[in-house]
Amino acid sequence: MDGEFDLATAVRDLGDGSYAATVTHGWDIGGNANGGFLMAICGRAMAARVGRPPLTVTAHFLAPAPSGPCTIDVEVVRDGRRLATASATLRQDGRDVLRMVGTFGHQAEDGPTLVTGAPPELPPADECVVPRAHTDDFAPVLFDRLAVRLRPGDDGFRVGEPTGRAEIAGWFAFSDSQPIDAVALLFVADAFPPPVFNTTLPVGWVPTLELTVHVRGVPSPGPLRCVYRSRFIQGGLVDEDGEMWDSRGVLVAQSRQLSLTPRAPTPGTVSPTG
Amino acid sequence: MDGEFDLATAVRDLGDGSYAATVTHGWDIGGNANGGFLMAICGRAMAARVGRPPLTVTAHFLAPAPSGPCTIDVEVVRDGRRLATASATLRQDGRDVLRMVGTFGHQAEDGPTLVTGAPPELPPADECVVPRAHTDDFAPVLFDRLAVRLRPGDDGFRVGEPTGRAEIAGWFAFSDSQPIDAVALLFVADAFPPPVFNTTLPVGWVPTLELTVHVRGVPSPGPLRCVYRSRFIQGGLVDEDGEMWDSRGVLVAQSRQLSLTPRAPTPGTVSPTG
Repeated sequence: MDGEFDLATAVRDLGDGSYAATVTHGWDIGGNANGGFLMAICGRAMAARVGRPPLTVTAHFLAPAPSGPCTIDVEVVRDGRRLATASATLRQDGRDVLRMVGTFGHQAEDGPTLVTGAPPELPPADECVVPRAHTDDFAPVLFDRLAVRLRPGDDGFRVGEPTGRAEIAGWFAFSDSQPIDAVALLFVADAFPPPVFNTTLPVGWVPTLELTVHVRGVPSPGPLRCVYRSRFIQGGLVDEDGEMWDSRGVLVAQSRQLSLTPRAPTPGTVSPTG
Repeated sequence: MDGEFDLATAVRDLGDGSYAATVTHGWDIGGNANGGFLMAICGRAMAARVGRPPLTVTAHFLAPAPSGPCTIDVEVVRDGRRLATASATLRQDGRDVLRMVGTFGHQAEDGPTLVTGAPPELPPADECVVPRAHTDDFAPVLFDRLAVRLRPGDDGFRVGEPTGRAEIAGWFAFSDSQPIDAVALLFVADAFPPPVFNTTLPVGWVPTLELTVHVRGVPSPGPLRCVYRSRFIQGGLVDEDGEMWDSRGVLVAQSRQLSLTPRAPTPGTVSPTG
């Protein structure tokens, strides 16, 4: 049985590298689809076209996407034995929304291994903070679909008590507990509130220019431990690095995005995820 | 007067978004052009087409490029007031070598600022290590063009004394002291030996699948302080994160790449840069 996320990101093959999908209400922030959600739709079409899961994909965001039908045109750039590279454009009503390029394939089952780093230390999920939805201006309808649980304190920005540190960590799962595959990891990379909200800077929203995800493993069942950090806020731009770790303690994805930091139009008008 | 690097990466406008260039001998590793050097050629064509410097570019590497002529076909994806997004393919003899996508524009002159991090601590350049060329199997002809100076010890892999830590730091300048612009930063991101060489893992070479560079500032005159680290070597893949800092202590570029880690075919056949 397909999960809610799989259904929402499903694509229909129209032939000749074209796919149809629907940007579904319920995965949006203020009416516009979450960027990682769009990446997942586009990535699913690309993965279908080349018959392999994503290893490294980059999206450039061109326009916001309200709910409604969309098409994805996939161009196969290189189709090798182990790896394939593809480019794709997601469009709505003839308007380019998203341009992606990616290389697809599987991780090796062995090979040299050296890991410097560890999952973020988190209290059990039931001691973490639920990002509320509907009843709260600061939380989007998106979180109804997700069992995201923030590390206590990391939700401080929502109540005027930012930690002062551009970091947000927490647990990720889908509300319906559907398994998290490589395409879903593209979404997870963008599913938390921007860490810059936990600084005291006058940053109101952070429209993403570019988001790259490296899929580093196949997640084992269970929630992911995730952490997102911004280290360089300067020149009207902010980076955001994400790490997603599975229940075995294996890093399953790394992400990095570059976003604009326009000044908040009026104090307090933060939005909960970029 | 143009510097050697500017001349080597110059592009000629053929009209209709097509550009011609030459992959020059002298910027190669064992006969194939350095990946960052190819990104600079392609990035220069894209920047010329959209009339703005790169802010964030991603390259997927499709085939090695020997010296010789090449063409770059640039497609403008979005041409906005402040930002432009473009895609490009670099080809040699009809073969795709490199696919890039990028967003182009300038950093803001002000905006919220919060930097967590600092340039690597390095001894003065004349106390650092020159990566030798020509006379040394482990150093490519590339380093004749560069005033790269490695942190003492970080060249240990060359003499069978790896530090055991997947990190390499050092100074970067061009031998002819030409200024480092946004396009040159794409090259700097790939101009040092891979940090994985300083581990004791059986990794012989690390062909890059994907390399993303965020240009975070306009370098002030003088050499750059650079550091490159690999934190996650697993599943036949390795990441590499780079930071490039200018003489004022400003981060001017961040890079991340994902490379394959095939086993060394025979012991000791390391190549000095990926």
